[in-house]
Amino acid sequence: MSFRIERDFIGEKEVPIDAYYGIQTMRAVENFPITGISVHHELIIALAHVKKAAARANASTHMLTQPIADAIVQAADEIILGGLADQFIVDSIQGGAGTSINMNMNEVLANRALELMGKQKGDYFHCSPNNHVNMSQSTNDAIPTAIKIAAYQQAHRLLDTLQSLQEGFDRKALQWDGIIKMGRTHLQDAVPIRLGQEFGAYAAVLGRDVKRIASATGHLLTVNMGATAVGTGLNAKPEYIKEVVRLMAEDLGIALASADNLVDATQNTDAYTELSAALKVCAVNLSKICNDIRLMASGPRAGLGELALPPRQPGSSIMPGKVNPVMAEVVNQTAFQVIGNDHTICLASEAGQFELNVMGPVIALNLLQSLRILRNAVDVFIQFALDGMEANLERCAAYVRDSFGIVTALNPHLGYEVAAGLVKEALKSGQPIRDIILERALLTPEEIDVILDPYHMTSPGISGEWLLGKNGDL
Amino acid sequence: MSFRIERDFIGEKEVPIDAYYGIQTMRAVENFPITGISVHHELIIALAHVKKAAARANASTHMLTQPIADAIVQAADEIILGGLADQFIVDSIQGGAGTSINMNMNEVLANRALELMGKQKGDYFHCSPNNHVNMSQSTNDAIPTAIKIAAYQQAHRLLDTLQSLQEGFDRKALQWDGIIKMGRTHLQDAVPIRLGQEFGAYAAVLGRDVKRIASATGHLLTVNMGATAVGTGLNAKPEYIKEVVRLMAEDLGIALASADNLVDATQNTDAYTELSAALKVCAVNLSKICNDIRLMASGPRAGLGELALPPRQPGSSIMPGKVNPVMAEVVNQTAFQVIGNDHTICLASEAGQFELNVMGPVIALNLLQSLRILRNAVDVFIQFALDGMEANLERCAAYVRDSFGIVTALNPHLGYEVAAGLVKEALKSGQPIRDIILERALLTPEEIDVILDPYHMTSPGISGEWLLGKNGDL
Amino acid sequence: MSFRIERDFIGEKEVPIDAYYGIQTMRAVENFPITGISVHHELIIALAHVKKAAARANASTHMLTQPIADAIVQAADEIILGGLADQFIVDSIQGGAGTSINMNMNEVLANRALELMGKQKGDYFHCSPNNHVNMSQSTNDAIPTAIKIAAYQQAHRLLDTLQSLQEGFDRKALQWDGIIKMGRTHLQDAVPIRLGQEFGAYAAVLGRDVKRIASATGHLLTVNMGATAVGTGLNAKPEYIKEVVRLMAEDLGIALASADNLVDATQNTDAYTELSAALKVCAVNLSKICNDIRLMASGPRAGLGELALPPRQPGSSIMPGKVNPVMAEVVNQTAFQVIGNDHTICLASEAGQFELNVMGPVIALNLLQSLRILRNAVDVFIQFALDGMEANLERCAAYVRDSFGIVTALNPHLGYEVAAGLVKEALKSGQPIRDIILERALLTPEEIDVILDPYHMTSPGISGEWLLGKNGDL
Amino acid sequence: MSFRIERDFIGEKEVPIDAYYGIQTMRAVENFPITGISVHHELIIALAHVKKAAARANASTHMLTQPIADAIVQAADEIILGGLADQFIVDSIQGGAGTSINMNMNEVLANRALELMGKQKGDYFHCSPNNHVNMSQSTNDAIPTAIKIAAYQQAHRLLDTLQSLQEGFDRKALQWDGIIKMGRTHLQDAVPIRLGQEFGAYAAVLGRDVKRIASATGHLLTVNMGATAVGTGLNAKPEYIKEVVRLMAEDLGIALASADNLVDATQNTDAYTELSAALKVCAVNLSKICNDIRLMASGPRAGLGELALPPRQPGSSIMPGKVNPVMAEVVNQTAFQVIGNDHTICLASEAGQFELNVMGPVIALNLLQSLRILRNAVDVFIQFALDGMEANLERCAAYVRDSFGIVTALNPHLGYEVAAGLVKEALKSGQPIRDIILERALLTPEEIDVILDPYHMTSPGISGEWLLGKNGDL
Repeated sequence: MSFRIERDFIGEKEVPIDAYYGIQTMRAVENFPITGISVHHELIIALAHVKKAAARANASTHMLTQPIADAIVQAADEIILGGLADQFIVDSIQGGAGTSINMNMNEVLANRALELMGKQKGDYFHCSPNNHVNMSQSTNDAIPTAIKIAAYQQAHRLLDTLQSLQEGFDRKALQWDGIIKMGRTHLQDAVPIRLGQEFGAYAAVLGRDVKRIASATGHLLTVNMGATAVGTGLNAKPEYIKEVVRLMAEDLGIALASADNLVDATQNTDAYTELSAALKVCAVNLSKICNDIRLMASGPRAGLGELALPPRQPGSSIMPGKVNPVMAEVVNQTAFQVIGNDHTICLASEAGQFELNVMGPVIALNLLQSLRILRNAVDVFIQFALDGMEANLERCAAYVRDSFGIVTALNPHLGYEVAAGLVKEALKSGQPIRDIILERALLTPEEIDVILDPYHMTSPGISGEWLLGKNGDL
Repeated sequence: MSFRIERDFIGEKEVPIDAYYGIQTMRAVENFPITGISVHHELIIALAHVKKAAARANASTHMLTQPIADAIVQAADEIILGGLADQFIVDSIQGGAGTSINMNMNEVLANRALELMGKQKGDYFHCSPNNHVNMSQSTNDAIPTAIKIAAYQQAHRLLDTLQSLQEGFDRKALQWDGIIKMGRTHLQDAVPIRLGQEFGAYAAVLGRDVKRIASATGHLLTVNMGATAVGTGLNAKPEYIKEVVRLMAEDLGIALASADNLVDATQNTDAYTELSAALKVCAVNLSKICNDIRLMASGPRAGLGELALPPRQPGSSIMPGKVNPVMAEVVNQTAFQVIGNDHTICLASEAGQFELNVMGPVIALNLLQSLRILRNAVDVFIQFALDGMEANLERCAAYVRDSFGIVTALNPHLGYEVAAGLVKEALKSGQPIRDIILERALLTPEEIDVILDPYHMTSPGISGEWLLGKNGDL
Repeated sequence: MSFRIERDFIGEKEVPIDAYYGIQTMRAVENFPITGISVHHELIIALAHVKKAAARANASTHMLTQPIADAIVQAADEIILGGLADQFIVDSIQGGAGTSINMNMNEVLANRALELMGKQKGDYFHCSPNNHVNMSQSTNDAIPTAIKIAAYQQAHRLLDTLQSLQEGFDRKALQWDGIIKMGRTHLQDAVPIRLGQEFGAYAAVLGRDVKRIASATGHLLTVNMGATAVGTGLNAKPEYIKEVVRLMAEDLGIALASADNLVDATQNTDAYTELSAALKVCAVNLSKICNDIRLMASGPRAGLGELALPPRQPGSSIMPGKVNPVMAEVVNQTAFQVIGNDHTICLASEAGQFELNVMGPVIALNLLQSLRILRNAVDVFIQFALDGMEANLERCAAYVRDSFGIVTALNPHLGYEVAAGLVKEALKSGQPIRDIILERALLTPEEIDVILDPYHMTSPGISGEWLLGKNGDL
Repeated sequence: MSFRIERDFIGEKEVPIDAYYGIQTMRAVENFPITGISVHHELIIALAHVKKAAARANASTHMLTQPIADAIVQAADEIILGGLADQFIVDSIQGGAGTSINMNMNEVLANRALELMGKQKGDYFHCSPNNHVNMSQSTNDAIPTAIKIAAYQQAHRLLDTLQSLQEGFDRKALQWDGIIKMGRTHLQDAVPIRLGQEFGAYAAVLGRDVKRIASATGHLLTVNMGATAVGTGLNAKPEYIKEVVRLMAEDLGIALASADNLVDATQNTDAYTELSAALKVCAVNLSKICNDIRLMASGPRAGLGELALPPRQPGSSIMPGKVNPVMAEVVNQTAFQVIGNDHTICLASEAGQFELNVMGPVIALNLLQSLRILRNAVDVFIQFALDGMEANLERCAAYVRDSFGIVTALNPHLGYEVAAGLVKEALKSGQPIRDIILERALLTPEEIDVILDPYHMTSPGISGEWLLGKNGDL
């Protein structure tokens, strides 16, 4: 392989002759062979947008000559369209607050711009990664801005998917509104409920998650471009700051705004922890829902058997015919990953010091991963589990018929203690509740029919309310 | 000690003759000797409000006779005013979704009501914990409603305190706006910043925390009273549901509203995880801020020494004259507790199943504790650390004078590489940057004065911008 | 109230005339009104042991006169026996690495010693909290030593309880060794297993937890007494260091040893994180076991119904006769608390800086709480849930009879694909597997009897192995 | 692209004609497009070892014909040597406890074996993924066994690296044993310590981490091969179970042993949580150490400046000459990731139910990632930060000279209160402590020289002990 020699103030290094990246990328690759996981593609694209806007704003504020700016813009556009993807070779966990990925981008853009201007790669006099591409910028504003853009875009893709899930649950709520089943609290038989009500509750909590996550994306719109090194804006003209944000917003179609307080926006990472926390709350809810669904679909014979999930793959390499709730399981696992990632993000966020949080790379890795996997998992869950899910009407009805929980409806008529006695007796003797009531002449058959009607129990109110006066008030 | 005998469907038990609590409280005390930490006082009070409103609503909907309702209301009012506090003896971690604290309250109210009606304690025919006090309710609606009320009230007390902290930081931001110091990124000398800007950034992030927490209290206002056992409202009249919420809202002066979907509101605990997540985000920020302050106050001789905290207590049992940043340390520790508590709350929330999350008690314990300790810690931090904090002007100025970070302002004039060379030379020779520039005739003394003016560096813009044309464009 | 005036280098303060604590305790109470939770009793007692041993070692190395040493020792003995408990009034979360609780103890001992020597409280010339009681010590060695002692003792109490739980599970394993039931994976019917095997697995993992926790207590035995402020042992004579540890070990009957590296032992908190991590692993296991038990005990009619737990309390304030698995639920909640506490401990441990971790108080609070609540919860779980647990033989047998999982035993005879086809057919037609096999003449009735014998399936081996040759090898 | 048609009991699917994987792999790819991160290479290799040993054990127990076994073994060997790596295409987060990666392996082996036997891919009659490759196995024993092997091997590679780090710290401890510097507690000046002592403490805690992690790998050696579906060993001959473990142990050179209790070993995941917890404890320690190092290396002018790290890359895209402690930062971030991963592992572990924990994939992903990144980060930290680290002797000495902490050595001679007074006076007047002592005639110049000798203060004992009698006992 042929090399060119590049220099920085640390020393010099051989760079592969064809590489668009340069010496600082090489150093980063040597320094940080940590995860083997590349920087998220979405972050690369967002960073290219940042660089493009900066070049344009520098040109319009007369800091950069137009030809250089044009070349940088064209190079950035190529990256935005998916080009040069193999030139971003630094690891997603890297020291230095993202300096390495920022310099990787600066070097790739500089070399591609040089090429476009008919110059040799590495001929940084004509277009330097630091002086031209990174002009008016610091890692400390360019990288957080790019993270925020990538997170915002990914969050909104996730929101679309979560909304589809909510709608899917709502469809089931409607479809299954007539199916009466036993409600369970403490995993013990409680009182009747409708299957549709359960799925309606899933839709409802998802609806709040959608709002929470959407609300948590708000602070991502406030970027610190122009903050440069520590938020004071040293080396960034005020008119550049205004212009670079305007251009990014226009280019991306996102309502980005310049932070009122650039020092604050450079130092603090609460926009990330806030979003991650919202994702975590959602993950907790999704995991609970999937646990419920896996329980309801347990069986087919030795479980609850209230639901049947579409078979997606043989469930076992040894047990023939076994089908597992794999789509729910993958949501559970994704939820656990998101919750763990939130923990990493919090630790990293707490570790910020003074003007900057240098732990940005691990934050970005975890936040963008959480956004991605949550969307992916929910997406396949909708397609491959929710849409084809079926209810076992017979099983649901049998549980209601066999259970004692319905005696709760007797409370207003007979009192809690008498009702409890009926259950105790039924459990001991195996006799149906109804028979015991009749035997003891507590109610007439007609009264029982009215009071113990399970459908009525699934809405607010007192079953057989008009009988209350008759049988005496509590 | 004398006893009375009480019975439930499990069996019978001796209860101290004078006790207002009854058999189920006794069972709970026997079953759950876990933490030794009582249920939060604020939760007891909130639950008394719930019971009072329920009794009134039951009376107004003709389920409860007025004399019994009046007695329950009077008993509840006594508890609200701080009475009978020693009668709430169940542990804060308890099995059963809060049934034990609900029954503890039901029993205390029933017995006190009986007493007020001239009856014997334990004479539950006239006023029963289940049939009368708990009428139209379940643990599963009464307890979540009480938790939400207590959390809402505590959160708003916390918000007041956090706002005071924000204002305190803002005062310092103003007071110290003129103090130039070295900004630090990666703990390495960066470029100048003003001490006031740093405190302004603390105020800014706190301001967002206040908004986040306030916003996260919103879902606490939606209560599930009338949901009864599983959210279907079995045994709760629609008009009771409306009335009980109206009465609580009126009584407490809080804009409580009945959940549109009672099944959802009974099953899901996202209102708690949402608030806890917001507290956690705030805790992360507070810990970061206190870390900064402890670093700036490090010394007095072998540390950074930029800040001096008011001495609050001798810092060491062995080192004479030592004073430690104890008020910041206690905020750090509180923050760690809040973050750990959030973890517990998430685990408990994820463990919900079907119609109910039975892990409510450990959620309430941790949520109310987080709210309490965060407020307490911030409150003393303001009083005993922030208000008396002093800046060491001399030390701040010396760091700026001695540091090389200011060469960043040379970038637009000389380029990054030349500026880097100056630093390298200065580090090697010990010569001031200024002298090297002059020696190399890169700039005139007047130009240096303008470009390297540190105050100018703390605001956006290019130092000596008008010189750019003269010295050549990049 | 009457007061005496006490002074320190910060200033002076009124102290209640009868108080054994002094000015620094007063300052701490003012500074740290955080949790309202007192320092764990066990830590107070352990600290008294530390102080007692230090006084004796100081006397024997001629640093302290015998009369003063004797008075301190007598005062410490009173505290060890439970005296003066109301004098320890500082909050469990406090700034300063435990200086406040150390000084609280120093002051109480000094004043009680003064009293025993016939002097006035506060007359510190004759016995000073710092010069005499704290002689040769620092908070930074006395407090970690006390925490380690308290944690060690509590851990061994917990180990006894966990061992009882393991034995309880082992008893059930033996008792239920003959009960065949359906094994479940993915909550789907798998292949038969014996109930005793399941409880044997619970015993097995508990056995490893016991070993893990026991092993994790090992580093608690290495104490840093004599390290004084930063581990260098300044102001502590080598012979004192040897003696103080020997005396504590003798007094407590614990094999305490002096750390080889006192700087290490003062700076690092890994002994706590190690123990907490072991507790967390145990908590995870306990929670899983309790989840299983709650699932097996679900019902009685609309759940799995394989187990019945002893009824401990009415399960609902509204649903008569309902009994909940409250003892398992309280273990789950305790486990969540322990896991959250571990998180807090890790955060606090990571926050150590240089020679000391100042976050000791929050670590001690969480570690000792985890040890306590885990023991309490497991203890009542054994008594009130495990010992009286009953198996539902009929239900277990019915699931095995009805399930298809047994076809797995056909694999070696018919191959996975053919067996899968049988299940598919049975699910569609509702026909028993056996009938389909006969209909298709795949096996004779006698062969089926042998191969599908469920008991045989619960041990390693191939059902009907000798038939393999006959029907053709795979 | 050409396809072949494959079938399973769910239906049929087109498989690329050249693919070694089959229908179930195709289903998994469709079902689980979650992370985009492949299953760890080390796990693939370990699984190939498992399959190889199973084929050999099945042949030697006469379940599998020798030609088929030989073909499977040869195929497995190719994978072990790095072949067919592009055929493992299922996502690392997948539903189903690892069924998908198990079947991916079974299919690749079956098809490669078919090819080796001169058959067509997909001609599973001659060698079936389920009947032949997976013979006597289940996902539920093969996958956990492979995870344990991979984790064991990775853990021991990590241990080598951690030991190198410990040795590196020990070298520095020796090298810097003579450098006296200020000890710091609470970030406040404490008493002198030697830089070598600090690094010795880092070595000491690392030494314990090595032991902890090594100990935590012990349970990985106990594997559940032969447990098949639920641990009962259905379809696995006892002699096969013995043989397969013996063969794996021999082949891998690892002391693997068959679990005494296969049900336990199939159901429980504590071996993973135990190892992850040990990694987490280590991560906490590493993060603390790196925090210290970053603080000591802060500056160069506006920080502590006690250490200089080797410059590895330009630290800023904007600030010329800036060098950041990037190697320490990357260890911090890696530590945060490991701690977060531990959280995910605990959540997944707690979610196990009955006979199996289906969350294995997310556990394996996080555990193997933690092992890998910790090793990678520590490895580069040693090479690029520790080995070239330099101490700033002048700065260390200056802090000792300027600080007041040395007055602690006066305690035994003058008492804590007098010493505290000296500090207060010195702070106010700016006068050196020595001068004040002389002025007040508290000690002679010779006595001061002896008592305040900082080197002496860095070892146990009382400076100027023989003077104690002379100046009066406390």
